[in-house]
Amino acid sequence: MPYFDAASSLPPHPVARQALLAALDEGWADPARLHREGRRARLLLDAAREAAAEAVGCRPDELSFTSSGTRALYTGIAGALAGRRRVGRRLVVSAVEHSAVLHAARAHEANGGAVEEVPVDRAGRVGVDDFRAALREDTALACLQSANHEVGTEQPVAEAAEVCAEAGVPLLVDAAQSLGWERPADGWSLLAASAHKWGGPGGVGLLAVRKGVRFAPPPPVDERESGRSPGFADLPAIVAAAASLRAVREEADAEAARLRALVDRVRARVPELVPDVEVVGDPVRRLPHLVTFSCLYVDGEALLHALDRAGFSVSSGSSCTSDTLAPSHVLRAMGVLSEGNIRVSLPPGTAEEDVDAFLSVLPDAVRRVRAHLDAPDAPEVPRESGAEPGAADLGPEPERGRAEDAGAPSLTVDSRGKLCPIPVIELAKVIDRVPVGGTVVLLADDEAARLDVPAWCEMRGHEYLGSEGHTYRVRRRA
Amino acid sequence: MPYFDAASSLPPHPVARQALLAALDEGWADPARLHREGRRARLLLDAAREAAAEAVGCRPDELSFTSSGTRALYTGIAGALAGRRRVGRRLVVSAVEHSAVLHAARAHEANGGAVEEVPVDRAGRVGVDDFRAALREDTALACLQSANHEVGTEQPVAEAAEVCAEAGVPLLVDAAQSLGWERPADGWSLLAASAHKWGGPGGVGLLAVRKGVRFAPPPPVDERESGRSPGFADLPAIVAAAASLRAVREEADAEAARLRALVDRVRARVPELVPDVEVVGDPVRRLPHLVTFSCLYVDGEALLHALDRAGFSVSSGSSCTSDTLAPSHVLRAMGVLSEGNIRVSLPPGTAEEDVDAFLSVLPDAVRRVRAHLDAPDAPEVPRESGAEPGAADLGPEPERGRAEDAGAPSLTVDSRGKLCPIPVIELAKVIDRVPVGGTVVLLADDEAARLDVPAWCEMRGHEYLGSEGHTYRVRRRA
Repeated sequence: MPYFDAASSLPPHPVARQALLAALDEGWADPARLHREGRRARLLLDAAREAAAEAVGCRPDELSFTSSGTRALYTGIAGALAGRRRVGRRLVVSAVEHSAVLHAARAHEANGGAVEEVPVDRAGRVGVDDFRAALREDTALACLQSANHEVGTEQPVAEAAEVCAEAGVPLLVDAAQSLGWERPADGWSLLAASAHKWGGPGGVGLLAVRKGVRFAPPPPVDERESGRSPGFADLPAIVAAAASLRAVREEADAEAARLRALVDRVRARVPELVPDVEVVGDPVRRLPHLVTFSCLYVDGEALLHALDRAGFSVSSGSSCTSDTLAPSHVLRAMGVLSEGNIRVSLPPGTAEEDVDAFLSVLPDAVRRVRAHLDAPDAPEVPRESGAEPGAADLGPEPERGRAEDAGAPSLTVDSRGKLCPIPVIELAKVIDRVPVGGTVVLLADDEAARLDVPAWCEMRGHEYLGSEGHTYRVRRRA
Repeated sequence: MPYFDAASSLPPHPVARQALLAALDEGWADPARLHREGRRARLLLDAAREAAAEAVGCRPDELSFTSSGTRALYTGIAGALAGRRRVGRRLVVSAVEHSAVLHAARAHEANGGAVEEVPVDRAGRVGVDDFRAALREDTALACLQSANHEVGTEQPVAEAAEVCAEAGVPLLVDAAQSLGWERPADGWSLLAASAHKWGGPGGVGLLAVRKGVRFAPPPPVDERESGRSPGFADLPAIVAAAASLRAVREEADAEAARLRALVDRVRARVPELVPDVEVVGDPVRRLPHLVTFSCLYVDGEALLHALDRAGFSVSSGSSCTSDTLAPSHVLRAMGVLSEGNIRVSLPPGTAEEDVDAFLSVLPDAVRRVRAHLDAPDAPEVPRESGAEPGAADLGPEPERGRAEDAGAPSLTVDSRGKLCPIPVIELAKVIDRVPVGGTVVLLADDEAARLDVPAWCEMRGHEYLGSEGHTYRVRRRA
């Protein structure tokens, strides 16, 4: 049963499992104690720290183990902001950082700080000039991920580190997605990562803070991990994390090349096999194992379940699969389609046949979801859907008076109260009912429409005229 | 090799080990994901939560897993204080809480809040009347441990819960030391504990918050664990924690009775075997497995190493074994001797012979440390120690002018720059050089002297006249 959600969490690497078992007998005592059990635990902890520091590319005394990658990011951001409070309270982040970074940024704002989000292009990549422009005299910290967790795009970390150095601003690099693949580019001041992303156990993060970086760890502080991670840690898990990081790195280059080819195959074949698909993220400067695409007229959660039934575990950034009912902030920042979004992230060792099997089941899974939703291109004869436009469904036509539409035919579809992807499906169904140059007014209160209506226009070659509140206006162009 | 430091951390219970191994295969995926690996992980997490809630005595949806007991305390305290900010910003804690509670209290003070410490008696027990008196209209939260981690004294939690209920103040109970032994007394509003104290893995804490308690988790918050514990957790460790809690509880009553008898033996025999020992903590209302004593004229770290060489792992609250060079805040709050402090905490399954073996090596270990320090009652002929009083060592005698000493002979010993237990040893060596009624003035800048000079006076029947800065005055009474 192929598991294609490596970017979320990996099963433990065999070396992680062995190291965990080996450390259970000696790694349970408090490494701060002076007795022999404590000293043995301390030896294990020191060895794990040295191995992890070697993989990160820092000194052992610059590296602390935290209780998760999320906690490493929180502590790193809060500590660097507090350490440079006198410089200013401005935090720069890219718009596509992990939610942990954005949560920390929200907390900083709630606490009176300022946050500036650097935009990304349609491939999800930060522009170095944009990054430079965001740095000001009062910028206390800048954050940039090594590669995006949802679309795989690599960020220009080395270049960002250069502009940060010029501006005298420390750079925190979130290396969660890439640390298992390679040693991070030089130039960072702080670095965070998470062991379960490389095949280590859950509950282990890394936070590295370069000597000389002003850092005041957020309270409360105890004597553990240089004051940067309070509480008694799971030492066998830390040992397993360090051992597995070393092990996956040994296999990383060969495995990256193999998975890169498989991902290239997915990137090429999916648009051939499935109509109306947008493959997102940078095609070249990307993580080796990850590919994301969005399918027009598809409910992401339904597609995820259909693939799950077919034996494939993937994830989705569509709004309907999240608690918040908002589409992924990454897709939003990129301005790409969010409906029917699927992320395929291949674990090391993924068999070629499993990828081919995925490609063989995907088209039918998409077709079924579209048929169920009565999507425009579905093979079945379209039934009347709830908001099929007709006299009874037509709302007021408020556009008549506007200059650019004067005289042009207009049609209104009311999709309020309906969730993604229904508003876009209803839009697609009526576009042919106005002549080329005519306008469709779509009323939709699902947050995903803000992303998916313009994305649909771009994919279909229609003109997106903009939105006001829950009213979207589209001009037929073909 | 007997390990007698159970209160610090226990080796994993066999059930913890089994559960950990069993959960490694199914517990690595993200329980928030919709695919089958995520759903399997979710089932494990739900089952662990139910088992832990049953042992705690709460509803599963009241219980969150955290990354340590320390983190559970931090989050519980910060969340309850924030939730009741409108009531007031006063936090009540006992003076002998775990350092994590006191660190959280310091952070609250640094943030503008007020903290009131409730004193304890010489046995380390909080008085219910003192606790009641500390609760005011603007008290947001009160914290009380179920039992003390250094001296084993049980606190009157049920009574404290009653007075808190009368005052309308939520009570947070730190059950870290007792949860493996018994279900906590009813009446708490929040409860924290730590798995490695009962034989579960490190890196797993519990935080229970009763429905209806106002609680605003400290930022940043994510969607995990009801917003109370951000970041991806170590699910196999959580499963192991819950399974082992259930297992140790099944054995708890029988094992508690057995260990209680062994501890009673230690409490009775140590003062018979070793001269000048103070056994501290409540002799009856105490944890079953823990006993603490302090040895006059002994360096705690040296004794700890001597016992370690003899094969016994214990811990110490003496100043010289800690980074801060300050004696344990617990011993300080109790007002008992801190020098030569040893905590013996027996793991479940401790053999009677091992306890007897400990009692047989202890006297000689103490004797050797005392001899090495040239203590007053050491068998060797006293050599001249650095500050042996004599003409050259005598400081000024500033006390001559004071009324109560007028005419009485006085002698000054300068022990400044010397660490515990040297100042008390030097005091003991000169007390016979003044007549009964005469005064010794001791100059000492080691923080431990503040505790140990009065404790020595009480043990030796001399009169402690008080201190001013680094000057201590003692009147010979016998």
